[in-house]
Amino acid sequence: MADGAINGVAGARASFDQQAIMAMLDAQVHDAKNGRVTIRLPYRKDLCQQDGFVHAGILTTIMDSAGGYAGYTLMPEGSRVLAVEFKVNFLRPAVGEWFEATGEVVKAGKTLTVCDLTCHAVNGGQATLVAKGMQTLICIN
Amino acid sequence: MADGAINGVAGARASFDQQAIMAMLDAQVHDAKNGRVTIRLPYRKDLCQQDGFVHAGILTTIMDSAGGYAGYTLMPEGSRVLAVEFKVNFLRPAVGEWFEATGEVVKAGKTLTVCDLTCHAVNGGQATLVAKGMQTLICIN
Amino acid sequence: MADGAINGVAGARASFDQQAIMAMLDAQVHDAKNGRVTIRLPYRKDLCQQDGFVHAGILTTIMDSAGGYAGYTLMPEGSRVLAVEFKVNFLRPAVGEWFEATGEVVKAGKTLTVCDLTCHAVNGGQATLVAKGMQTLICIN
Amino acid sequence: MADGAINGVAGARASFDQQAIMAMLDAQVHDAKNGRVTIRLPYRKDLCQQDGFVHAGILTTIMDSAGGYAGYTLMPEGSRVLAVEFKVNFLRPAVGEWFEATGEVVKAGKTLTVCDLTCHAVNGGQATLVAKGMQTLICIN
Repeated sequence: MADGAINGVAGARASFDQQAIMAMLDAQVHDAKNGRVTIRLPYRKDLCQQDGFVHAGILTTIMDSAGGYAGYTLMPEGSRVLAVEFKVNFLRPAVGEWFEATGEVVKAGKTLTVCDLTCHAVNGGQATLVAKGMQTLICIN
Repeated sequence: MADGAINGVAGARASFDQQAIMAMLDAQVHDAKNGRVTIRLPYRKDLCQQDGFVHAGILTTIMDSAGGYAGYTLMPEGSRVLAVEFKVNFLRPAVGEWFEATGEVVKAGKTLTVCDLTCHAVNGGQATLVAKGMQTLICIN
Repeated sequence: MADGAINGVAGARASFDQQAIMAMLDAQVHDAKNGRVTIRLPYRKDLCQQDGFVHAGILTTIMDSAGGYAGYTLMPEGSRVLAVEFKVNFLRPAVGEWFEATGEVVKAGKTLTVCDLTCHAVNGGQATLVAKGMQTLICIN
Repeated sequence: MADGAINGVAGARASFDQQAIMAMLDAQVHDAKNGRVTIRLPYRKDLCQQDGFVHAGILTTIMDSAGGYAGYTLMPEGSRVLAVEFKVNFLRPAVGEWFEATGEVVKAGKTLTVCDLTCHAVNGGQATLVAKGMQTLICIN
């Protein structure tokens, strides 16, 4: 490991591929750079709640991974990341062909990192913000 | 609908059975009374993140449904419930044979309801608190 | 009241002037437009916690009012606003000559409004983000 | 410092006495034991918002200090405490002769501590829950 090396995008993609839940949901990394990761989730009926909208917890699952990996890209090579907590507001029913969750680092610290989280529903090429949140991560060396 | 009738436990169980995501996760209502619902989720490898713990978002999914239905039991018959927002802290790695999420109503209002959320991991009959949160619900008539 | 009239900036400023706590803290509206309000608070020793930083709850007080009035500007004329809940992350020690809290509406609904909240510390003309949060408001008619 | 010594109640009370903001608000430690602290705030007109209720941010200020000191009692002697984040729901208007905020440790870790927060309004000897929250603290050595 070089001094000051970080996990980077390659590290985040490699770790993402080890999240069994992402494969189970058919979720994929749509875009990644240091400090910002977007995960795409296709609509599936079996992810829905009683009204036919994707369950708030499933949107949260991809938002949490997007934020976790956004933070992870900036953490020292070989370190791990865990979610300390998150808070999410649901703004509109989650209706769309697919969903894009983005995590973006607001403050990267040695121990704690804070991210903004968003989730858009995409319909006929048009993206609508359906959820917005914040997340605190901890870096484990 | 009788004056003052509420959805009750029977209404909550009927709605739960329409949450496709709960069947997909093998989650079941373990216990329900008015204002308090517990959902049980068995461990599955395909629900895990990169370290082999159940993903924080999946724990949140059953916590959100537990709280949503706890609130729903007390809402007027025929009304619907949506999550406005939630916040969850993750206290310990989610290692267990199964997980029990409980939602309990703290304040039931005409429009908004606030719930406490907990999630325990159960191992060899012993329950450990792994996540704790709060949730705001809205009643849609 | 004209059909569709909103409280607007004038309504927000008038209500702000009735918040005794703002006068007590020497806090003032620094900038206001529909959907976005900034409140400025000068540093005072008697607002500090044990390490000499302005107390997190005092920063939250001006963030909450900034968000509340940002939402209030867009609500129907004559309606009132209450905070349902907020969540704030503290990113850096609150050291500065003054503090600027901004609330900005993310989603304005008939009943509920969601705002982003920020707080910057200003030192020698340079602003540093010290806290970031989210807030849910309810409109009371 | 003895091995394993903690700040304890005496340490928390000493630090509380250095929070200038608590004296300014006339807030006092009402009860303290290891892991649980209650702060009492008398009603004052100049702490109110536009409707004559104590401002949500002021209730949060005493809830934050109550939780911070609850966590601090259990931290190693000589360590400091900072709030990482908190989330508070406001359940009822804050009307009372005085207010009692309690912080209680849910999980005390080496680095992070999580607390439950409550605030009751007391009127004619009767306490009503007016706010409930959660808080994450960090221990600085």
